[in-house]
Amino acid sequence: MEQLEPITRMVNELSHLPGIGRKTAQRLAYHIAGMELEDVRNMATAIWQGRKAIRYCKVCGNFSVDEVCQVCADEKRHNGQICVVRDPKDVIAMERMHDYQGLYHVLQGTLSPMDGIGPSQIRIAELLERLQQGGVSEVILATSPDIEGEATASYLAKVIKPMGVQVTRIAHGLPVGLDLEYADEVTLSKAMAGRREM
Amino acid sequence: MEQLEPITRMVNELSHLPGIGRKTAQRLAYHIAGMELEDVRNMATAIWQGRKAIRYCKVCGNFSVDEVCQVCADEKRHNGQICVVRDPKDVIAMERMHDYQGLYHVLQGTLSPMDGIGPSQIRIAELLERLQQGGVSEVILATSPDIEGEATASYLAKVIKPMGVQVTRIAHGLPVGLDLEYADEVTLSKAMAGRREM
Repeated sequence: MEQLEPITRMVNELSHLPGIGRKTAQRLAYHIAGMELEDVRNMATAIWQGRKAIRYCKVCGNFSVDEVCQVCADEKRHNGQICVVRDPKDVIAMERMHDYQGLYHVLQGTLSPMDGIGPSQIRIAELLERLQQGGVSEVILATSPDIEGEATASYLAKVIKPMGVQVTRIAHGLPVGLDLEYADEVTLSKAMAGRREM
Repeated sequence: MEQLEPITRMVNELSHLPGIGRKTAQRLAYHIAGMELEDVRNMATAIWQGRKAIRYCKVCGNFSVDEVCQVCADEKRHNGQICVVRDPKDVIAMERMHDYQGLYHVLQGTLSPMDGIGPSQIRIAELLERLQQGGVSEVILATSPDIEGEATASYLAKVIKPMGVQVTRIAHGLPVGLDLEYADEVTLSKAMAGRREM
């Protein structure tokens, strides 16, 4: 017996999702095939209507339901600080700490010469435009501490500093709760380099 | 910033899937929110149309596109053998070995008194009906070697044997390629009990 065509189509689509291989997609497709019609309709609708309801904030590039996102529209946020991140989900991570009161700028990618992604492929021009409008005193670079994230941070520091805006980089070091002996060498060397007087 | 409502709805729906917790659902929802509209439409359509296209074979209970599934409709299959499995995906697993030429019966569950699932909640009556029509010489019980699977197999053996039909159980033992030292005790004891003369 061949795999049924509707199931194959589900498997093909589901395996486009990150972290979902063919085997997992197959497990999910068989599960969906056995679900109540009503529940599957709700799921498919949530996916399609959800995606349709989402656009990018025209100011910062974050996910938004309206033209301008919740953060940019919030007058209580300090508009003198802009925290630069790669993805909308990084904004959620930052917001989870309930500590940062400034604005964001979502690059929607990082520089990666290997993949042919240069400064014009990500939202750097939009960031520079925001800075040119004035009023921003600090740009916090919060891209990940990997090769692309570091390259992006270096590039941004180089182009932003001449504009007279303070540029900072989030600290890299030992994550809280990690035992020293389990830290990798790169993290440890960053932690040493970033040491502060007590 | 709160999580956007359309994303929350996606997370809620996706986390109903097996093996997808809230964290994974969130990762998937953020990925979907950033996908091309067209790709999301294809995925949602494949899920919904796929589910709608699938029903249960009226003979064996397997997934099917038509009233009778491919296996039951195939005249080259031996209709004197019925292999009893729990789920439609078990049929796919059996078919993958390209070795078995008989028919199937999908129980759509296993007996589980703890969860209140008795003989009338799974497709046992339908199996007995097929046997009463005659022509079946062997029923192969291929439920999993866990508590529910064994209980279901024992129950079926008890009700089918008096009908004069041979009842067999698939062998349990060491999986091919598994080193003896890594086998768990239960598997090893089943392998010993099922030993055969060489």
